[in-house]
Amino acid sequence: MTIRVGSKVRAPVTIVEQGRARKRLDYLAAEEPLEIRLQAGGQTKTVAVTMRTPGADFELAAGFLHGEGIVTERGLVRHISYCVDPEVDPEQRYNIVNVGLHLSELPELATLERHFYTTSACGVCGKASLEAIEIRGCSVLPPGLLVDAAVLTSLPEKLRAEQALFDATGGLHAAGLFTAAGDLLCLREDVGRHNAVDKVVGWALLNRKLPLSDCVLLVSGRASYEILQKLTVAGVPIVCAVSAPSHLAVDVAREFGVTLVGFLRGERFTIYAGEERIRLGL
Amino acid sequence: MTIRVGSKVRAPVTIVEQGRARKRLDYLAAEEPLEIRLQAGGQTKTVAVTMRTPGADFELAAGFLHGEGIVTERGLVRHISYCVDPEVDPEQRYNIVNVGLHLSELPELATLERHFYTTSACGVCGKASLEAIEIRGCSVLPPGLLVDAAVLTSLPEKLRAEQALFDATGGLHAAGLFTAAGDLLCLREDVGRHNAVDKVVGWALLNRKLPLSDCVLLVSGRASYEILQKLTVAGVPIVCAVSAPSHLAVDVAREFGVTLVGFLRGERFTIYAGEERIRLGL
Repeated sequence: MTIRVGSKVRAPVTIVEQGRARKRLDYLAAEEPLEIRLQAGGQTKTVAVTMRTPGADFELAAGFLHGEGIVTERGLVRHISYCVDPEVDPEQRYNIVNVGLHLSELPELATLERHFYTTSACGVCGKASLEAIEIRGCSVLPPGLLVDAAVLTSLPEKLRAEQALFDATGGLHAAGLFTAAGDLLCLREDVGRHNAVDKVVGWALLNRKLPLSDCVLLVSGRASYEILQKLTVAGVPIVCAVSAPSHLAVDVAREFGVTLVGFLRGERFTIYAGEERIRLGL
Repeated sequence: MTIRVGSKVRAPVTIVEQGRARKRLDYLAAEEPLEIRLQAGGQTKTVAVTMRTPGADFELAAGFLHGEGIVTERGLVRHISYCVDPEVDPEQRYNIVNVGLHLSELPELATLERHFYTTSACGVCGKASLEAIEIRGCSVLPPGLLVDAAVLTSLPEKLRAEQALFDATGGLHAAGLFTAAGDLLCLREDVGRHNAVDKVVGWALLNRKLPLSDCVLLVSGRASYEILQKLTVAGVPIVCAVSAPSHLAVDVAREFGVTLVGFLRGERFTIYAGEERIRLGL
């Protein structure tokens, strides 16, 4: 078995190169389930189990609940803590986070349940997916923010330079939040790209920085519906991805006035929506 | 809005290169929700909603249910069909798949519910994640299959050559099933890597080819716990990834005797578990 120390794990591996094998110790990205529980009015309910890289777990829980429209503001959070239930195996306690709310009872979880498990006979389609975002109270983001193309092309290198865990393990996604001038505000890494985004949004929520109206967010890899949904709810006007977006990610961006950039590599990128926020220049 | 035609979507984009912009039409990978419903004994229950690239939806549903330990063999499947409920909006019908089982009532979904939504006070940890695979009836895979290192290093190029949707959209994951001689048996693409794997396993289930004891599977990108879990249940003895595995993926491989190879690129790869199935040679 591998031995986990924080966000990375050391394990013996065999490297094969041109038919020759050699042994060495290598670092792996840690992956463990995180159970997120809501608490209010003396009740506790598990709302999600996600496979994540341990670290920034409170931010992950807060960001996830924000994206689901449950924790809409910092003031709603009474406490966030690891499970201290003596019946729980000590080694599992750091895989359970309790989020206590200033509410007299647990909030309606209908929209949340839909994501995970649903017994209703509801049909689903791209249109319904867009409506799910409107239900969270999102309207079209205002224009206003203007960012230089040269700032955008500088971001991937800045993200990569700060990715400590990627350097060690070679296998982690990242989400980086930047100012319009290209300064890094917050970077989080995870085996799941959606978790990295939740951690950044959770950081912003807990530090009372929402909505992120003046920020640019860059994700490693691709941009899916889920990523755009979380960032739209957080009010991020410019979302960039190193690889391709899906068609539904583009639909969300166009519907809610988000600027979406893909294939951000070197001096080149592709704008899928909201090009009015990008200032070109030679 | 974008217009979806099958698995890809055409949309106008702006390409920026060294500060200069030009317009063009580009293809995006389609992403839509798929609702999977189980039917037995006159009852219907939705068991999952997953964001996927349309195409091979019946295989996706079958493979997903196999990984969850619900549809253990082909003979259990009475029918698989799109929803024909007249109450459902016609455009949504192709996003709902009904899987009818030869059972007098719906199977116990406790283990499934745990994945999506759980109200029990269960703690979760890596150990519990390994036990979840044992519950699906998996034991250590037998040795026997032996594959040349040169066959493994030939796989990424073969996978890439057949990735039709990736070529068009630049943004899809793939899972390819190969013989021990390196011949491609089945390739599936999806915005979600786990869906691509479900589609391949579903193809094998529906064609009565399980367990896949003589096969090698290659996934684009990284190998997570979820990928290893699905492939272990399908009996695949050799799993390869183009990028890094997570620590829990390595733990699953070691626990269940799966050969796990990562960073399979060019003439080089890393063996994380089960190196006895790989024949080195100069």
